[in-house]
Amino acid sequence: MKTIDVCVSPELMHLYDVQDKTIVVVDIFRATSCMVTAFAHGAESITPFSNLDICREMKTKGYITSGERNGEKVAGFEKGNSPFEYMDDTIMGQKIAFTTTNGTLAIEKAKGAKEVIIGSFLNLTSIVKYLLLGENSVLIVCAGWKGKVNLEDTLFAGAVVEKLKNYIEPDCDAPLISQQLYTVAKDDMVKYLSTSSHVKRLNRLNIYKDIEFCLTPDQYKVVPRLIRGILKV
Amino acid sequence: MKTIDVCVSPELMHLYDVQDKTIVVVDIFRATSCMVTAFAHGAESITPFSNLDICREMKTKGYITSGERNGEKVAGFEKGNSPFEYMDDTIMGQKIAFTTTNGTLAIEKAKGAKEVIIGSFLNLTSIVKYLLLGENSVLIVCAGWKGKVNLEDTLFAGAVVEKLKNYIEPDCDAPLISQQLYTVAKDDMVKYLSTSSHVKRLNRLNIYKDIEFCLTPDQYKVVPRLIRGILKV
Repeated sequence: MKTIDVCVSPELMHLYDVQDKTIVVVDIFRATSCMVTAFAHGAESITPFSNLDICREMKTKGYITSGERNGEKVAGFEKGNSPFEYMDDTIMGQKIAFTTTNGTLAIEKAKGAKEVIIGSFLNLTSIVKYLLLGENSVLIVCAGWKGKVNLEDTLFAGAVVEKLKNYIEPDCDAPLISQQLYTVAKDDMVKYLSTSSHVKRLNRLNIYKDIEFCLTPDQYKVVPRLIRGILKV
Repeated sequence: MKTIDVCVSPELMHLYDVQDKTIVVVDIFRATSCMVTAFAHGAESITPFSNLDICREMKTKGYITSGERNGEKVAGFEKGNSPFEYMDDTIMGQKIAFTTTNGTLAIEKAKGAKEVIIGSFLNLTSIVKYLLLGENSVLIVCAGWKGKVNLEDTLFAGAVVEKLKNYIEPDCDAPLISQQLYTVAKDDMVKYLSTSSHVKRLNRLNIYKDIEFCLTPDQYKVVPRLIRGILKV
């Protein structure tokens, strides 16, 4: 039988046997929310880089350079880490080079898996359907915050576990913890998250609009997949 | 101001700056529950060993050898990992050499802290009072299960965060996650935990009585402290 598990931090990835699994990488605030938004607006590809300087150099090869460090846009980069920057006509048909504090590192660590896809609340139902129809067991990898667990990525994991509960069996305690949290939070996730450290951090950056949007389920239907190091739909 | 944080797995210890902190190590099923029970019944000291063979050798030096691997008693050891084994007259005044799958490793990793104490539901209120009166910020280190997070240790962390919420500020999302789980579970923790992977594993070992006892708050008032590698009260 297929199983579903949750890795609450990229720092715990070495504990999981992933070669036969579909990994869903999630970084709700805001890397994977941006990626999903960009593909929904016609991006051709997104190449994730954990190294900032290598990412910056991709501009000379015709890429849009994107991302953040510590929640803020990087000097000299064309786009930051707000999904609203990935909605306009400049995205259509473009290749994007992307780096973030946590999200791109999580993707990097997921590379040994049979399959890697990108999840967010924005494409939640599409992710759930994709996992349901797929043959592989599932591991949701939460990007967290600099190795520590965070509430928003754990909530997303819980949403997926909850929606698949009649079809795919939880493998350990982490899916149960995530599911419990989601069950309590789902009716008003913005309010629920208002006490979390990351939301406090983001509110200081004046991006309440981003927070609200990133927590809105099912805005898009794309399921980005990592193919030879490059994300495509 | 003092803060409280929760490290959900010993594998994440390197992310925390602990030299000024009081660490509470918790392994509810069942290492720290046994340790607290043993001290409440007059044990003189408990020396934790992560290595099984070194622990076994301590018998020749007059120690009671105790512990488990994968939830089961070790061949040749005098005592296993059930708190009920630490309640009789044989404990009084004895030195105990203790090794377990997860708990002793968590203690080993906590050694850089300013202070290390041993927590369980059995001495919950004493732990809370101790932390309240102490000057240090707090890190609760969950032993987990082979590096992965587990529900019961996270619940204990949540109980401490909840009881200290008006006095010590949560430092990150992990204390909030723990606290939320505890709030939902506290009225019937045995039932709440019945779906967890560790309780399923333990039920296979026929130790329902242990589970129930380990989840009963405030049976004892001892607060074991680690002093030069040896636990004492």
